[in-house]
Amino acid sequence: MMNSRKPQPDPPPSRGRRRLLGGLAAGGLAASQATAAAELLRPLDVAPWSRTPGAPTLDHPYGVPSPREANVVRRSARAWPLPGAASSMTPLADLHGTLTPNGLVYERHHGGVPDIDPEQHRLALHGLVRAPKLFTMDDLLRLPSESRIHFLECSGNTGSEWNGPSGLPVQLTHGLLSCCEWTGVRLSTLLEEAGGLSNPLKPESGWLLAEGADAAAMTRSLPLERILDSALVVYAQNGERLRPENGYPLRLIVPGFEGNTNVKWLRRLKVVDAPLQTREETSKYTSLLANGSARQFAFVMDAKSVITRPSPGHRLSTHGYYPITGLAWSGRGTIRKVEVSTDGGATWQLARLQGPVADRALTRFQADWRWNGGPAALLSRATDSTGYVQPTRAELVAARGLNSQYHYNAIQQWRVGENGEVRNA
Amino acid sequence: MMNSRKPQPDPPPSRGRRRLLGGLAAGGLAASQATAAAELLRPLDVAPWSRTPGAPTLDHPYGVPSPREANVVRRSARAWPLPGAASSMTPLADLHGTLTPNGLVYERHHGGVPDIDPEQHRLALHGLVRAPKLFTMDDLLRLPSESRIHFLECSGNTGSEWNGPSGLPVQLTHGLLSCCEWTGVRLSTLLEEAGGLSNPLKPESGWLLAEGADAAAMTRSLPLERILDSALVVYAQNGERLRPENGYPLRLIVPGFEGNTNVKWLRRLKVVDAPLQTREETSKYTSLLANGSARQFAFVMDAKSVITRPSPGHRLSTHGYYPITGLAWSGRGTIRKVEVSTDGGATWQLARLQGPVADRALTRFQADWRWNGGPAALLSRATDSTGYVQPTRAELVAARGLNSQYHYNAIQQWRVGENGEVRNA
Repeated sequence: MMNSRKPQPDPPPSRGRRRLLGGLAAGGLAASQATAAAELLRPLDVAPWSRTPGAPTLDHPYGVPSPREANVVRRSARAWPLPGAASSMTPLADLHGTLTPNGLVYERHHGGVPDIDPEQHRLALHGLVRAPKLFTMDDLLRLPSESRIHFLECSGNTGSEWNGPSGLPVQLTHGLLSCCEWTGVRLSTLLEEAGGLSNPLKPESGWLLAEGADAAAMTRSLPLERILDSALVVYAQNGERLRPENGYPLRLIVPGFEGNTNVKWLRRLKVVDAPLQTREETSKYTSLLANGSARQFAFVMDAKSVITRPSPGHRLSTHGYYPITGLAWSGRGTIRKVEVSTDGGATWQLARLQGPVADRALTRFQADWRWNGGPAALLSRATDSTGYVQPTRAELVAARGLNSQYHYNAIQQWRVGENGEVRNA
Repeated sequence: MMNSRKPQPDPPPSRGRRRLLGGLAAGGLAASQATAAAELLRPLDVAPWSRTPGAPTLDHPYGVPSPREANVVRRSARAWPLPGAASSMTPLADLHGTLTPNGLVYERHHGGVPDIDPEQHRLALHGLVRAPKLFTMDDLLRLPSESRIHFLECSGNTGSEWNGPSGLPVQLTHGLLSCCEWTGVRLSTLLEEAGGLSNPLKPESGWLLAEGADAAAMTRSLPLERILDSALVVYAQNGERLRPENGYPLRLIVPGFEGNTNVKWLRRLKVVDAPLQTREETSKYTSLLANGSARQFAFVMDAKSVITRPSPGHRLSTHGYYPITGLAWSGRGTIRKVEVSTDGGATWQLARLQGPVADRALTRFQADWRWNGGPAALLSRATDSTGYVQPTRAELVAARGLNSQYHYNAIQQWRVGENGEVRNA
């Protein structure tokens, strides 16, 4: 901290260079250093945006990305046969860090995206509670709130890879995955507002039906005791109100559980004493095993990881150092470690995890790699805080068969060719 | 997890209600309970968006907020006399949690917002380094990266309140404040790439000049040793590439330091052995004290807090419970505690802090309040991890005088009238 009676005048522009030169031998060496410095800075001198004023006022009260990033958008993996039933996927290869910006959060809908008037919208909480209640949005905003960073993943994510490498890029294999700071009211707070559970229902016997207000009216039954500590009834993502396709004005967030349980456009919560076997949890969201039985209520998203860079579509330009970076997550807790292989799984190195490593959130990992120009096969393998290790595709298929559809969490491989091209193969 | 040979058929629609009724006395009470349940759910039944399909396909590859949130935008506190020199402020009263969505991150510019071609853009690192370097964006993206959540605050934030309550709402008093997950390369990594510091310069003697590529070419001198551990050269905010008005494609992030030191459109870093006394750090960004001396290089943003809800523009509708919520932050570390008063500072209660409380990031606080309908005066007071306590306006003015302009961090009061109106008074 400097005290001076008057601020000092601007230094002459070449002061820095003279100082640099003052520390060196005089003469030819100094002259060549000056030339080198001028050469270094020439691109800065000629950049056109440095020579003319930019856009005079802020044209965007709500900002938008640079037009130069116009390729970073959500995409669908395929054409959708029915109007109103579609999904769009997060461009994971183009993202950094752990959070998903709101405009790129993935979404899935079955009856179009509803336009809900938040002043008319209601949340009913009824069933086996002492004082069934109808909440307005103002009621909910007037209750204590919490904010938590959690991933969201569709249970069908990466289903393209069951039968082997699909050839698709990471957006279309893994892009039903996002991570936001969610803000809302704890489910337990709402149950208190409704007088608590009716006697004689105990939490361990209770189930919660969650229902959406869109035309498809998604319903799921959830085991009450397992979600009571962590479930939030949410109205904000990454600081602002929910996006229409992500559930505006209200959704359920059940950390670590299948995306479909995080019911969007939430209108009804009903406490019951057994699962209601709704359409979505019987005809869908069950996994048919090889022995003919169906695995149902497999709520938790298992530990998983994927390398986002380099990934298909990238081309390595020169030999040398590349950071291998990607994301890891687990519905059971935190990521304990991520290992990376560049030789198809023959050898593994421990990756660095970006701290702080958070519970049921995306974790960014990074490993060092020197590419020598030969073919390579890049893989990542996550281990979570329970000790669960991300399986290979062969291990997963052996356990679940090939009709399982949901909960594909196997290790993903990207091949690097001698020309630097990266492929899903 | 249930195994069954076939999924069970849908339950009859009134199953839930029959179960509920089964637990109650029969007859009149049961009938009235059924009526009550039907009444409760009637708004859900008649909601128009539940009866027609929503928007058939996803119209927004890059999503936008609901049109019903169109009032949640950045705003300027005043008209700006010169084209190209302006700022726009974050709507803090409408946000939740701790993160600022990218479209609402505040900004300040002095020469318009440049349109920079990332493929042509260069970052020069020169001066007292062994191997001066010119980096392309590809070079930077090919180095190990880190992600950190940090607040950003303009040193002029809240300057409207020096002479007492301005009457402005919180967006226009405190809105030069945002918080993002920033991703980029450590400054220390770049210095290694440039061969490290030239002998005989020691880090404790070094200063770093940072310069922007916009028409205004902001320059700041920064003390090297103080920033070496934490400074990042950043290309992403909340997961995606920087927004044009926030520095696309590259900016400096110096956690906890004045916003202006976080130079946007970063094109040059020069290692020198003394501050260069640039225009911005002499004619601006210095505080003129009452004794005629100027406080210069007061880099760190002091601990500060503000209540965002209720705040001016809100009107309390009924008596009863309200959560008082707001934000606290410190450029010196973490927030240790926040206290809230509802009686103008006569008495204080400890607020709850949303964990995890992070270093030099926004912390959300919440306190409980029962409004009895009388006049009230709401204040918050932050204490940071160094023990520094947010001052009153009187204390700040006594220390700095009234010509200080920058670094206003005093306790802010909002008055609640008997009609529920909240004012900055």
